[in-house]
Amino acid sequence: MLKLFEYYWQVRKDWFDWCDLVTEKELLKKRSGGQGSILYTLFHIVDVEYSWISDLQGKKPQKPPFEDCAHVQKLRDFSARCHAEISPFIYAWNSGMETRNLSDQNETGEWESFKYGEIMRHVLAHEIHHIGQLSVWSREIGKQPITANLIRRGLFDI
Amino acid sequence: MLKLFEYYWQVRKDWFDWCDLVTEKELLKKRSGGQGSILYTLFHIVDVEYSWISDLQGKKPQKPPFEDCAHVQKLRDFSARCHAEISPFIYAWNSGMETRNLSDQNETGEWESFKYGEIMRHVLAHEIHHIGQLSVWSREIGKQPITANLIRRGLFDI
Repeated sequence: MLKLFEYYWQVRKDWFDWCDLVTEKELLKKRSGGQGSILYTLFHIVDVEYSWISDLQGKKPQKPPFEDCAHVQKLRDFSARCHAEISPFIYAWNSGMETRNLSDQNETGEWESFKYGEIMRHVLAHEIHHIGQLSVWSREIGKQPITANLIRRGLFDI
Repeated sequence: MLKLFEYYWQVRKDWFDWCDLVTEKELLKKRSGGQGSILYTLFHIVDVEYSWISDLQGKKPQKPPFEDCAHVQKLRDFSARCHAEISPFIYAWNSGMETRNLSDQNETGEWESFKYGEIMRHVLAHEIHHIGQLSVWSREIGKQPITANLIRRGLFDI
């Protein structure tokens, strides 16, 4: 599972760099589908990863509103802070943690129970799914998207 | 890893059912980004999963041209055939297979070497990425996309 997180972290960094070459207007433009803008989608995937993994760590996440991160560098900073807080947990992941239970209150106030392994995979699928949306929007504004390839990223080099 | 494949197979099936409610014209319409049409994208992710996993099994995949699958039911049939051929390998996956080497000739004729574990994750990221693209196109045509949530799918029920 760690390799998939490492893949996604690389891809996320590449998308931040991609954002440096795009106007703020395009980054914040409301678009069809997903979370509505390129920058908000990137904020959302950082935020959701941070929130769930904080939950698994039994910590209360300290989350800024989007308005405080609505520029590429501020979003990079937020992402770096979240990464520092959650990556030790992900690097320490082992199969014995798969079936631990997390109780979580959903948007309607109901309590739900999830396996830790379920949340880890949910986070991964969520991030990769949203990155797919960014690639469509990238073509809409006439720019080459970041490659989604997991191969040829050096992730499996010794 | 198996749970992520099971997630994706459920999502793929849901998208096939979603296609039943959309006109053929919309399904085949050329769109911006991704593989260019909804139906071709679905064909592509089935095809790429089938090709890579056949490679890992040392088998030569028997692949039809897209034109033979350019209807939802034909694509379902192709997907079912591929699934029958490759799912035993995925269900039999174990950590001892991670570092096996696959030699593969790329589009420019060069030979490349990949770890089996790298290819398995590449396939997963590839499928989820393309599904994210479908969700944007779904909104474009005014339809609710299939949820990308991995939680609440019963994948971790005993």
